[in-house]
Amino acid sequence: MEDRATIQAHLDDLTKPPGSLGHLEELALRLGILLGDPPPRLFPRCVVVMAGDHGVTHRGVSAYPSQVTRQMCRNMATGGAAINALAGGVDARVVVVDIGVDADRPLGAGILHRRVRRGTRDLSTQPALTREEVHRCLQVGGQVLGEVQPQPAVLVLGEMGIGNTTSASALAAALLRIPAAELVGPGTGISPDAISHKVQVVEAGLTRLRQRTSGLHGAGVALAALEEVGGLEIAGLIGVALEARRRHIPVILDGFISTVAGLVATHLDPDLAPWLFASHRSAEPGHDRVLEALTMRPLLDLGLRLGEGTGGALALPILDAAGAILREMATFSQAGVSGPGGDETIP
Amino acid sequence: MEDRATIQAHLDDLTKPPGSLGHLEELALRLGILLGDPPPRLFPRCVVVMAGDHGVTHRGVSAYPSQVTRQMCRNMATGGAAINALAGGVDARVVVVDIGVDADRPLGAGILHRRVRRGTRDLSTQPALTREEVHRCLQVGGQVLGEVQPQPAVLVLGEMGIGNTTSASALAAALLRIPAAELVGPGTGISPDAISHKVQVVEAGLTRLRQRTSGLHGAGVALAALEEVGGLEIAGLIGVALEARRRHIPVILDGFISTVAGLVATHLDPDLAPWLFASHRSAEPGHDRVLEALTMRPLLDLGLRLGEGTGGALALPILDAAGAILREMATFSQAGVSGPGGDETIP
Repeated sequence: MEDRATIQAHLDDLTKPPGSLGHLEELALRLGILLGDPPPRLFPRCVVVMAGDHGVTHRGVSAYPSQVTRQMCRNMATGGAAINALAGGVDARVVVVDIGVDADRPLGAGILHRRVRRGTRDLSTQPALTREEVHRCLQVGGQVLGEVQPQPAVLVLGEMGIGNTTSASALAAALLRIPAAELVGPGTGISPDAISHKVQVVEAGLTRLRQRTSGLHGAGVALAALEEVGGLEIAGLIGVALEARRRHIPVILDGFISTVAGLVATHLDPDLAPWLFASHRSAEPGHDRVLEALTMRPLLDLGLRLGEGTGGALALPILDAAGAILREMATFSQAGVSGPGGDETIP
Repeated sequence: MEDRATIQAHLDDLTKPPGSLGHLEELALRLGILLGDPPPRLFPRCVVVMAGDHGVTHRGVSAYPSQVTRQMCRNMATGGAAINALAGGVDARVVVVDIGVDADRPLGAGILHRRVRRGTRDLSTQPALTREEVHRCLQVGGQVLGEVQPQPAVLVLGEMGIGNTTSASALAAALLRIPAAELVGPGTGISPDAISHKVQVVEAGLTRLRQRTSGLHGAGVALAALEEVGGLEIAGLIGVALEARRRHIPVILDGFISTVAGLVATHLDPDLAPWLFASHRSAEPGHDRVLEALTMRPLLDLGLRLGEGTGGALALPILDAAGAILREMATFSQAGVSGPGGDETIP
C-alpha cells in the first residue's frame, strides 16, 4: 500500500483548486492507497449476481412469489434484466450464480450451477442454514471468483433472491445489535401492515439467534447469524468479497443486501474494510444504518431499491473517474499554471 | 414528443418492481418524451468549454489570478485538465472555445479562437458588456455548436473563467430577485472576509442593473443582466443551449456557472427547460438556489466545485443508463416473470 501523504500531495498538485473535486478526490486517494498511484484502469470488470431463495418467503414477507428468483435468473442470462442494461453501459460482465435457487433442475445456459441447497429453511422457525452449508456457500463464492477469467480488476456484488431483505434485516440487526423494527422496510414493495408482520418474523429468528450468541464476538457472531437467519446468496457474496481481498480486487457494494454481506464479511475479515466501496444509498431504510456502521459514504443517492448490482454498476464510472484524475491530470508545474495568488510572469 | 403515459406504462411493465429504479426512471421518462421511446444511444457527445475573463477579477474576488484562465485553456487543449480525464472516461469530446480570454494572441492549437473581447469590463463600476457584445456571444455559442461535426447527441456545458462565480452570482441574484449575500460563495476558495467583499462587489453591479430593469420581465431582464453583470463565456454557453434546443439535443448543466447559464437561457427561451438536465449539486452554496428555481434535482452530490464541465461528464453514464433501461430491458411477459403475488403456474 502506498503512502497516504504522498498521494494526497499528488492530488493537491494537480491543476485544480485543492479539494475542488470533492468526494472524487477521497476516492482517488483510496484507490491510490490500495492499488498504487497512479492506479491501473479498472478493466475487466464483473458484476457477480448470487441468487438464492428463502424458506421464509411463504410467510408473506415479499410482494413477489419465490419463483421470481429463478425467472429473473433466466432473464439475466438472456440479457433482459436491469443489471444487463446497466452493466452493458459500463463494459461490465454479468456472472449469474445459482447458489441456492428453489428449482427442480439447473436453471440452464448462462447461469453457473453451484446450488448448495434449494433455498434456506424458514428462519422464523428454525436455523436457515447448517454450519456446513454456510461454509460451502463461502467456498463457492471464493471459487466462482477464481473461475472468472480474465481476473476482474474490480467487482460489483449483486444479488437476486425473493425474501432476502428479510434475511439481510435479521443479519444486520444481529450484528449491529439493534431491534428489527429499526431496519425492516418495504423491500420490493409491501404494505405498512406487512412490514409489521415482517418485523415479527425477523424478531422470531433473532430471538433464537441471541440465545446462541450471548458472549460471542466478531466472526463467531457472524457465522452463527448466517446459520440462523442467513441466505445462501448472501453467504456466497461474502465468500466472493473475502476472496477479492486476497486477490487485491476492490469490491463495490450495491444496496441493502449487498451491503449487509459486506458488513458480515468485515466481521469475518477486519482487513477487508478498505477494499469495500459503497455505491449508492438505497431507498430501503435499513441501508443507511448499515452504511453508517461501516463508516461508508455512498457515491449515489438515486432512490434505487432493485438490487441485482444495479447501483454498483452505476457507480463504476465514478471510480473510473477517480482513478483517471491520478493517471491523467497534469500538475501545476507540468502545465505552467499559476497557483493561488500566482505570479503574472508564469507563462 | 412522445406521450408520457405510454412511456410510463412501458417503464412499469419492465422486469423490476415498479419505481424500483428511482430517479433513473424519471430520467428515462424525460429522455423518452424528448427523444422517443426507446431513446437513441447518446453518442457522439461533447463537452463545450467556453472560456472568458472578467474585469472584476482585479478587485480580489478570486483566489487565482486572471492568467489562469488562458493557462487552463492550454492545459485543456493538451489534455491535462480534470475535464480531459473525466470526459475521456465517458467517450466525450472536449471542445475549448476562447470567447473572451484576456490574452494578447490567440491561445493556439486545440482552442477555437472566437474571441468577442479580451475579458469583460469591471461589473462593479460599469456594464460588463455592450448589448452588441452579448448578442455576438450568443451567436458564437450557436455557431460553435453547428461546427461540431458529427453533431453531438448530448452536450455538457462547461466553462473556464477566473472570476466567473462573481458574474454568475450577480446574474442569479438579478433573475431570482434575491440579495447577493444569499448566493455568493467561496468560488475556487476565498476567505470569509473576501466573501463579504465579493458580496459588495456583486451588489454594486446589481444596484446599477436594478435601476435599468424595474418593470422589465423575462428576456428583457435576462439581456440587461448579461450586459450589466454577465460574462462572455456565460453568454456563449447560453447561445449553445439555445441552439441545442433548436437541434433537439439534450443539454447537461454542470455546476453553479453552467446552471446559471441555463437559468438565463430559460428566460430567453421558456421552451428550453425540458431539454436541460442537472448533473450535480455543487459545493458552491448558490447552486442549490438556482437548481431550485429551475425545479431541477441533480443526479450527483459529490462536493465538486471545479467547473470545466466535470460534474456534467460524471453524470453522462447515468443518462446512458436511463436510456438503456428503455432500450434493453425485457417486459414481464417477454421474460416470463411473474408480477406481485404472481401465479405459480407461470413458467
